[in-house]
Amino acid sequence: MPGRGQNHVAQDWRGNLIPRRCKMITREILNDVFNARTVAVSGASSNPDKMGYKVLKNIIGGGYSGKIYPINPHGGTVLGLPCCTSIDEIPEDIDLVVVIVPAKFVPDVMRQAAEKHAKGAVIISGGFREIGNAELEAEVMKIADDNHIAVIGPNCQGINYTPNNLCATWPLMTGKGTMAVIAQSGTIGAAMGEWSQEDAIGFSSLVALGNKSGVGEVELLDFFADDDATKVIALNIEGVKDGRKFMEVAKRALEKKPVVVLKPGRTAKGAEAAASHTKSIAGSDKIFDAVCRQIGLIRAEGITEFYDYSKILGLLEKPAGRRLQIITSSGGSGILAADTAEDLGITIEKPEPEVIEELKSNLPSQCVASNPLDLTGDATAERYKDALEIVIKSSRADVFLVIFGDPIDGASETMRYIKTLTGKPIICVFLGGGEIEKKETPLLNMAGIPTFATPERAVRALGALLRKKQ
Amino acid sequence: MPGRGQNHVAQDWRGNLIPRRCKMITREILNDVFNARTVAVSGASSNPDKMGYKVLKNIIGGGYSGKIYPINPHGGTVLGLPCCTSIDEIPEDIDLVVVIVPAKFVPDVMRQAAEKHAKGAVIISGGFREIGNAELEAEVMKIADDNHIAVIGPNCQGINYTPNNLCATWPLMTGKGTMAVIAQSGTIGAAMGEWSQEDAIGFSSLVALGNKSGVGEVELLDFFADDDATKVIALNIEGVKDGRKFMEVAKRALEKKPVVVLKPGRTAKGAEAAASHTKSIAGSDKIFDAVCRQIGLIRAEGITEFYDYSKILGLLEKPAGRRLQIITSSGGSGILAADTAEDLGITIEKPEPEVIEELKSNLPSQCVASNPLDLTGDATAERYKDALEIVIKSSRADVFLVIFGDPIDGASETMRYIKTLTGKPIICVFLGGGEIEKKETPLLNMAGIPTFATPERAVRALGALLRKKQ
Repeated sequence: MPGRGQNHVAQDWRGNLIPRRCKMITREILNDVFNARTVAVSGASSNPDKMGYKVLKNIIGGGYSGKIYPINPHGGTVLGLPCCTSIDEIPEDIDLVVVIVPAKFVPDVMRQAAEKHAKGAVIISGGFREIGNAELEAEVMKIADDNHIAVIGPNCQGINYTPNNLCATWPLMTGKGTMAVIAQSGTIGAAMGEWSQEDAIGFSSLVALGNKSGVGEVELLDFFADDDATKVIALNIEGVKDGRKFMEVAKRALEKKPVVVLKPGRTAKGAEAAASHTKSIAGSDKIFDAVCRQIGLIRAEGITEFYDYSKILGLLEKPAGRRLQIITSSGGSGILAADTAEDLGITIEKPEPEVIEELKSNLPSQCVASNPLDLTGDATAERYKDALEIVIKSSRADVFLVIFGDPIDGASETMRYIKTLTGKPIICVFLGGGEIEKKETPLLNMAGIPTFATPERAVRALGALLRKKQ
Repeated sequence: MPGRGQNHVAQDWRGNLIPRRCKMITREILNDVFNARTVAVSGASSNPDKMGYKVLKNIIGGGYSGKIYPINPHGGTVLGLPCCTSIDEIPEDIDLVVVIVPAKFVPDVMRQAAEKHAKGAVIISGGFREIGNAELEAEVMKIADDNHIAVIGPNCQGINYTPNNLCATWPLMTGKGTMAVIAQSGTIGAAMGEWSQEDAIGFSSLVALGNKSGVGEVELLDFFADDDATKVIALNIEGVKDGRKFMEVAKRALEKKPVVVLKPGRTAKGAEAAASHTKSIAGSDKIFDAVCRQIGLIRAEGITEFYDYSKILGLLEKPAGRRLQIITSSGGSGILAADTAEDLGITIEKPEPEVIEELKSNLPSQCVASNPLDLTGDATAERYKDALEIVIKSSRADVFLVIFGDPIDGASETMRYIKTLTGKPIICVFLGGGEIEKKETPLLNMAGIPTFATPERAVRALGALLRKKQ
């Protein structure tokens, strides 16, 4: 490809040298990368303190079933696998190379990977543009560009794609789910991953952008839009390189699934910090916000909402309307849910008189047969069952919020049953429940009932669900 | 006391009968109740499923060192303690009776407790006003009033006062701390307790108000204002019975320590739910909010903030000014902290040039020596130490926010050391840190450095700290 790959260095708005984005990363190439059947790990190490050990260990521990080739210049064996001393030694073509060697060796690794017709490189190694080595990065990107290798990173925390059991990152997380997280911030990505594991909702993918010199938000949005395992895309970015392209791809993705966006740098001070961090041009936050509203991107206010919104959108369909029925054992929590609902224009209607009558004749006298439906502090899972069997018949509710206050054993079993009785979405809250809460919350999530730690978080998440397009 | 105790039933705004509040509960009586040396447990049971078992077990398990008299009409032994068949049998006066018998037996228990000169009764039993039995409640309150017995409840979840190792409630929680929680909602109280235990910050007290027919928010505010163990009062109420009295006592308390208020029922729907729940007259929320601002009550927006604000106010003094220096290994988290700070009018100034120069010459080149001070993703506890030793010399910061993104081992040890070098308050965030985060977060809290799960929560808590009076 003579003539291509020239002029790989451009200048950003501050005059810093940055590599040009390679142009030819297609959905097909990314598909080969995430579904790689042959992976080389360049920089594999037998020293447990090294990243080259941890990442290889996680690829193995994640249950990856393709071929793994550890590369270590000294040969030998790492974690029971024989090493090649270089990629050249690998006896076949590879789909993906995970790169953990010092920056100066990366161009050589890339050249060898190109020889083996690698489709992608996850470059975990740092030491490029982020410390001023823009030319080294440009050299790497030129090799990638010339050889159609999709680069994730460099200076990134790797990728985890659970449909392929491919955990080329750290820590080891294997819980499968429907959320694809694209994270500019390794820490925010890690937090999303950890919370999803604790919650037992898992994820389809975690991708760290790092310097995003090759694959960026546009290519990943485009890929995950068509990824069957992914039902919601959680996108953490600090800036958008090509606004027109971003809008075009985001619009296409939004036709297929919801996209939640966390974009720090809303304020002047935040934007200044973002400029220092990733050299992102934050642009006008008001314009970005207007674009989100216009095309239907669901913007998260902070990290908590980023997780909560992605969680609910990955588990539930959009309710048919905005009428919420609250069922609770904790009066105070029910009131807080009603307050938050009213803040968000979510309506609270009382069930029809016949439903109220049936509730009254089947529940103890201290219960309040209304909306919130208050089952009071001594409610058991059995009382929830009795009450829910009746109240789900209300035609004045489009969605149900069931709040378990205090340790209510058997909550998940009851809710799994109730879920079979209605097609309307159900959301739960569990708080003040000690060890039983810790046990029941993941069980509820696993049953497809997103469960939150406070009523406010649950209702705000419902607000996000109501902004879903389809 | 002939003539007293008459007319114990009044009507509320809806015409429901309610008992009149007894008038004579003083700080001294409450002091005798919380510091009780002799406790009778009326309704003690050897059946582990019964509340009368759980509560007795928790009083014993909490390490209470006073005398415990379990009362069970069948006598025998419960949890190794011999039972009296009635309070009459107790060979001495008692300070406190914890009541767990069915409602209809409570008047007799109260009469017997009066004979033993009890100072207080924690009535956990339900079955009173909340189910329409206002007259039975009035009978109980008349006995209490005639005999100067301070009633907590009825229909409440009990009390936990850690300075006296007295856990007359459930679950068993023994971690001592500086936060006194007064909770209208048993669930919200339980959640506050559980979070404080996980965080290792503990509490001085948890008190459930229940029907608050005797002791209410006014008496408890007054008591905890003078309680040496309590540095912050967390008050969850749905309504205030006597607004003038409340303001008077709150003002007195606020001269001594901060008070955080969670009052659900902000909105029309929320207020309607509150009226059903505790028959509280929510009143105009705007007026309540204005009163809070006027006298300096710190209002929490939701349960999360209720906890976070109480946590920070129980651990830190008010900073001398509003200038925040952010130190982070996670660029994205630093930007979110800066955004939240700007939202709240908390200022972000760069350190003076000589501090920046010193940072630059002591840190790797990829670090951003500014505010946020970004130590980047490969930062270790050692790098934090190096950076913090320098940046705490900045005269352009009144308070420090240290964000640990990813698993950074030794974070708490470093911070304990740094804390010895400055008198300015330090707040931490730990996220994306997996098992190390779970280990280090409580250690940081125990070192007096409040540590939060997201930058947004930490900075909002700082906003509450800046509203402290003293």
